[in-house]
Amino acid sequence: MADKTSLKPTRRRFIQAGVASSAALLSSTTMAQETTLIPGRGPGRRVIDTGYYGVPSEFAKTQRMKGNRGPGLVGGSLTPLHELEGMVTPAGLHFEVHHSGVPDIDPAEHKLLVHGLVDDAKIFTMEDLMRFPKVSRFHFLECAGNGMGEWMSPRGQTAQQTHGLTSCSQWTGVPLKVILNELGLRGDAKWLLAEGDDGARMTRSIPLWKAMDDAILAYKQNGEWLRAEQGFPLRLLVPGFEGNMNVKWLRRLEVGDKPWWTHHENTEYADPRPDDMIRAFSFYMECRSVITSPSGGMTLDGPGYYEISGLAWSGTGTITKVEVSTDNGGSWQEAQLEAPVLPRCHTRFRMPWTWDGKETIIMSRSTDDTGAVQPTYEEMYKIQGPIGMMHNTAIQNWKIAQTGEITNDRS
Amino acid sequence: MADKTSLKPTRRRFIQAGVASSAALLSSTTMAQETTLIPGRGPGRRVIDTGYYGVPSEFAKTQRMKGNRGPGLVGGSLTPLHELEGMVTPAGLHFEVHHSGVPDIDPAEHKLLVHGLVDDAKIFTMEDLMRFPKVSRFHFLECAGNGMGEWMSPRGQTAQQTHGLTSCSQWTGVPLKVILNELGLRGDAKWLLAEGDDGARMTRSIPLWKAMDDAILAYKQNGEWLRAEQGFPLRLLVPGFEGNMNVKWLRRLEVGDKPWWTHHENTEYADPRPDDMIRAFSFYMECRSVITSPSGGMTLDGPGYYEISGLAWSGTGTITKVEVSTDNGGSWQEAQLEAPVLPRCHTRFRMPWTWDGKETIIMSRSTDDTGAVQPTYEEMYKIQGPIGMMHNTAIQNWKIAQTGEITNDRS
Repeated sequence: MADKTSLKPTRRRFIQAGVASSAALLSSTTMAQETTLIPGRGPGRRVIDTGYYGVPSEFAKTQRMKGNRGPGLVGGSLTPLHELEGMVTPAGLHFEVHHSGVPDIDPAEHKLLVHGLVDDAKIFTMEDLMRFPKVSRFHFLECAGNGMGEWMSPRGQTAQQTHGLTSCSQWTGVPLKVILNELGLRGDAKWLLAEGDDGARMTRSIPLWKAMDDAILAYKQNGEWLRAEQGFPLRLLVPGFEGNMNVKWLRRLEVGDKPWWTHHENTEYADPRPDDMIRAFSFYMECRSVITSPSGGMTLDGPGYYEISGLAWSGTGTITKVEVSTDNGGSWQEAQLEAPVLPRCHTRFRMPWTWDGKETIIMSRSTDDTGAVQPTYEEMYKIQGPIGMMHNTAIQNWKIAQTGEITNDRS
Repeated sequence: MADKTSLKPTRRRFIQAGVASSAALLSSTTMAQETTLIPGRGPGRRVIDTGYYGVPSEFAKTQRMKGNRGPGLVGGSLTPLHELEGMVTPAGLHFEVHHSGVPDIDPAEHKLLVHGLVDDAKIFTMEDLMRFPKVSRFHFLECAGNGMGEWMSPRGQTAQQTHGLTSCSQWTGVPLKVILNELGLRGDAKWLLAEGDDGARMTRSIPLWKAMDDAILAYKQNGEWLRAEQGFPLRLLVPGFEGNMNVKWLRRLEVGDKPWWTHHENTEYADPRPDDMIRAFSFYMECRSVITSPSGGMTLDGPGYYEISGLAWSGTGTITKVEVSTDNGGSWQEAQLEAPVLPRCHTRFRMPWTWDGKETIIMSRSTDDTGAVQPTYEEMYKIQGPIGMMHNTAIQNWKIAQTGEITNDRS
């Protein structure tokens, strides 16, 4: 990872490149005046007025937006990726997908039943679970349907609308294998059923190898309690697997010898293929990236220096490379990856760019440590067909007009 | 870093060690009944009811608490370290210290004047600053007075009260050296004055070497806009330096050839020494740690397995080792450091422990990559004297009574 600040300290490099051109340089004679010209300010709000759980400034309008997921209580909201920086998503801006709304669960009442092909079945309270060894890990969560509206043609106007069903948090909980080892797995155990305590009773089959690898029974998110929208007080985390398999409001785990073919496995989370077969149990959210700045809905302020920046992530491993093209895929340049770069985690990339003021298309392409490379739409169609919905991982184009206006356009 | 889950998968290891002992194991005959005994649930709240900026569950009561900093508008609040996990602090729980309350600043109106010993002085708008190259970095921020009440004798009951003036975020902004290089530093430039736009006009002298090293003009925190309490829309970040030098609501930077000896440098942020001299410009928040669980105010539920966990941090570098003693300093065991371990950043440590039910004292001791080791109170007194206030880095004792009750006691 090259140091951003290894850019040569040529004086006024960025100002000459159009950055901060609006602000006049001050002569030394006006300087002393300017110093005192900025008016002072009286006392501000007291701490007690700020409250003991802080909220954003009234001037900061960054919000989730409603996703158009479906009728009734199936719904969700999208993370404003185009307004965020770094790699952590604040809990209040984490995307949501719900299949029957958000239950409000009292953790003192919540229980987890673990049974099936184990030597001892058991019901755990939250207090029980919190006594076991803990891990905290940064992982992204992405809905299988992130970008579903983009398959056939570009529709979302902003990165929030095209890619806002991914977020990244530091999750804390008990490694699931600790619990399963405690209860004793029987020899024929191969699958795990995870059931949520929402009205939709979200139920998914998880392969046991994943449960025994890096799955977590998570109860904290970015240090504090899970949000209700994220499964408070307990969710399953299967890092890198499609969002809904990370079952929220987790109430039951059953160990079995084959998958259950549940409602959600047989309906929206099964993927049609070009050969008319169905791909079930897709599991992985594969290698993907998106430029978040500059991106759709923004307008460049004339030719000059801009930082291109975005997010890359992969459910199959760790991001090793992000390439950026500023000439519609004609040539590619490697972006800087910003530390920390962690497995199954959002990774921030950055690349300096000077826009010459001509119409162009910019895009990013990610690679992970399994060698997986983010495909173009044409490449993705060959594998998944042109009318898919879930597991869109294709390269995102942002078209920059001569006016500086940026749109979602892959023509 | 050892893998937590490398603990041998001996069946019922933790349950036999007193974890989850309250929950009865289920016989296989009652299991099927139990599965259906957990009642189902109707539809939950709709997304639109949850709001587009999410808030904690009504059952999650984790909050900051008012710190007793001083009279009038000098005040602050403390991060609930004992209730948090991992290494990130949610913005709504970041500690605060204010010297004249919290101003509400419209970012469209906010300006930063940079002048003094530079070739070109300049006034930047927020829009100007956001065009420059960016970095995002995880860093802790700690008030110089964190634990000031603990110098003479233990007073705080919880880790929030003893250590709650430290928090950790991913900060995003312009590297300060990029801006200073743009304007051109004169040959005699050695110091920088940073001035805040609060009523107290917080003003501090920063050595230029630090400004040109890793200082950031930060406008985002954990991805989103800074909170008003954290300096919205712009603060200085001087990683590892005492909190108030990270000037909030930053409005002016002046380059000079010597320190300014400002109000705050000559009053509360100067440190008396045992030889009656004053230590000014302490800068670094040095190597420190605290066990957050189990910690003061908690009660152990009888003998058995517990995970000891806490935070370590150092303004002079990266944490390389945390040792834990469970016998009042008689012997020490190395704890596991949880990834990512980053410079000038909170680091989570964990250690398995079996309590035998006898009265004891537990404590942690951190080491960083400069070789600095956290001192005992006796060792700290020798350097800083017994009546200090700022820069308390001493080892924290938690006394566990036979009843399991935990208190702040170094007798």
